Amino acid sequence: MAEVQVNNLSITDDDDIVDPWNVSGKSETGIDYDKLIKRFGSSKIDNELVERFEKVTGQRAHHFLRRGIFFSHRDFHTILNLHEAGKKFYLYTGRGPSSESMHIGHMIPFMFTKWLQDVFKVPLIIQLTDDEKAMWKDIKIEDARQMAYNNAKDIIAVGFDPKNTFIFNDLDFIGKCPAFYQNMVRIQKCVTFNQAKGIFGFGESDVIGKITFPSIEAAPALSTTFPFIFGDKVVPCLIPCAIDQDPYFRMTRDVAPRLKMPKPALLHSTFLPALQGAQHKMSASDPNASIFLNDTPKQIKNKINKYAFSGGQATVEEHRQKGGNTSIDISFKYLTFFLEDDERLAEIKKAYESGEMLTGELKKIAIDTITPYVQEYQARRAQVTDDVMQRYFEIRQIEL
Amino acid sequence: MAEVQVNNLSITDDDDIVDPWNVSGKSETGIDYDKLIKRFGSSKIDNELVERFEKVTGQRAHHFLRRGIFFSHRDFHTILNLHEAGKKFYLYTGRGPSSESMHIGHMIPFMFTKWLQDVFKVPLIIQLTDDEKAMWKDIKIEDARQMAYNNAKDIIAVGFDPKNTFIFNDLDFIGKCPAFYQNMVRIQKCVTFNQAKGIFGFGESDVIGKITFPSIEAAPALSTTFPFIFGDKVVPCLIPCAIDQDPYFRMTRDVAPRLKMPKPALLHSTFLPALQGAQHKMSASDPNASIFLNDTPKQIKNKINKYAFSGGQATVEEHRQKGGNTSIDISFKYLTFFLEDDERLAEIKKAYESGEMLTGELKKIAIDTITPYVQEYQARRAQVTDDVMQRYFEIRQIEL
Repeated sequence: MAEVQVNNLSITDDDDIVDPWNVSGKSETGIDYDKLIKRFGSSKIDNELVERFEKVTGQRAHHFLRRGIFFSHRDFHTILNLHEAGKKFYLYTGRGPSSESMHIGHMIPFMFTKWLQDVFKVPLIIQLTDDEKAMWKDIKIEDARQMAYNNAKDIIAVGFDPKNTFIFNDLDFIGKCPAFYQNMVRIQKCVTFNQAKGIFGFGESDVIGKITFPSIEAAPALSTTFPFIFGDKVVPCLIPCAIDQDPYFRMTRDVAPRLKMPKPALLHSTFLPALQGAQHKMSASDPNASIFLNDTPKQIKNKINKYAFSGGQATVEEHRQKGGNTSIDISFKYLTFFLEDDERLAEIKKAYESGEMLTGELKKIAIDTITPYVQEYQARRAQVTDDVMQRYFEIRQIEL
Repeated sequence: MAEVQVNNLSITDDDDIVDPWNVSGKSETGIDYDKLIKRFGSSKIDNELVERFEKVTGQRAHHFLRRGIFFSHRDFHTILNLHEAGKKFYLYTGRGPSSESMHIGHMIPFMFTKWLQDVFKVPLIIQLTDDEKAMWKDIKIEDARQMAYNNAKDIIAVGFDPKNTFIFNDLDFIGKCPAFYQNMVRIQKCVTFNQAKGIFGFGESDVIGKITFPSIEAAPALSTTFPFIFGDKVVPCLIPCAIDQDPYFRMTRDVAPRLKMPKPALLHSTFLPALQGAQHKMSASDPNASIFLNDTPKQIKNKINKYAFSGGQATVEEHRQKGGNTSIDISFKYLTFFLEDDERLAEIKKAYESGEMLTGELKKIAIDTITPYVQEYQARRAQVTDDVMQRYFEIRQIEL
């Protein structure tokens, strides 16, 4: 019986909580991502890597890379080596669908993935884990599937190329692709309950579907899961995702060599903070904490003005004197995600920290930056009909 | 979260071992099936039920029913009620495929199932759990699938009606039927690790695929797993199987009402004993313990003469005086399975127990009874080509 050694990562009371189900930081500046890199055993995306990326691709690095929003990786050098050698890989990412509208935080990995797709011109596979949602929540199979379709349209509106993007939801696709179930079995054979418990914290009173679910998020990281795309070619995989999904892929990377498949490479993103502060990530279940992709300009304005946690001082006088704290200011943090112009961002930082710029002015810049982003998104979203969606879901060959 | 109460059945050192992976009796007369009925909480198939069966169907009961070879049931009265009311149900049985040739013991549930199909004229679904074999043994996915196809041909040769028999192997079919995976998820959501541990004895060092496997044997007992056969009709299910498979269906019967589906009814068979004695069932892994479906007449003759445990006395004189013991004599036990003529069987019993018939004579009758059975089977088996097999595997509508 093939079993793997899995690093079980112990966590102390001082540590931030970051797993697929819970994310919360201990400090008002948010999660300590450097500490997380150590704990997870991943590698930091440093200047050297960003420079190598620019050299190999001939393109300027995305501001998510330049600013450490994608901050951690596993084996990204291997992917750059492949690209340098003219060899292909594929991209894989995904989402656990929800009934609520998606928010701007959900878009971060997808925006970056679209950019990677444009740069590398490789196939992209997007998994919607509606089975996970049905298993973890009191949600019917039928409703979970509908949530997956709705979310798929939201994701498509990010602008993925229909020519080389394949989107699927587990509850339909697993029943349409024998190779998927066969790879699930191969993976399930390599992981014991004890190992799953160590990685994911499962307990004896968890339902058996939860315990086996990790095999379902792992399978798409193996190219043999998609024979209609890759034939029987072994094609390496790069997974851009938020850092909370890393446990699934730590497991996958332990299993892959046992199945004579390459370990997937990873690029990990930080979380877009909640309006109320950097300890928490933006969450769809709290409407006041989030800017949704279907919010109106008025809603965006009101939410930022009313809720966005400020790093400014209590009075104008004090602010002018001491300046604002950009390391805890949510409006400023949002600008690091959404304002592409590095110079402009540096000016704002300087002006705010010197006290020259007030919180109200900073909030206005955040509103003026995020609102057109959401409006442009909404215009694209309006074009995503059922017919458009169908093109992405079609089981079909995709040119490598 | 929908969770079920499952009877965890405790077992003492004195009890026979009967579970999906191990069967062994403590006594030389074999497994104490009456005790097993109590332990499992099933019901005995008594004369009253057999008589009711004959009344409701207008047919003589199969000798497996008359002689207690099918000895236990759950809710079989419900099935007879349905038949009386002109309503339909379906049959579901299966097999964990193996690389060895199937033996005559494997055929018992299938022979009886064929007869039930002939009597009731209902659809029959046969599951080949090649995924189970890949999970439990050091067998590759590809080899497990091939074993399933080979075993399917062996099963088809029992004589199932291709018009209303659907055969599938998990490793291919789950990836061709979204409803199957969706029902797996529904079932997996109702059973905790603790419950699976209680029913199946799983431990923390078992791989996650084993822990979730029971949902895969349970799913075909729900008619909604096969929309291409049943549409969205809720059709009750009757499962003829060896008693060792009962744990899967105890679990299924606990889960079904939570999914608003009828509990499957069951008919349980005893085991055909090994040649060496009734403590063990016939096992494909010991060629000297088993009569295989591809054995030659000479092999059958030699095996019975050489290995079939005798209930006769040590010397002819002693035997003439004391008579033979049919309760431990394997040749006689085989006749209860394969000699249909009740009168003839009674004569043999009388003659052997009185000492009038010697072991050699009894063995000759067993050889002369089993050999033509195997030869007729082999003639049918020779007709089962790939094309013939394909008809049974075709995903298609079956008339109820």
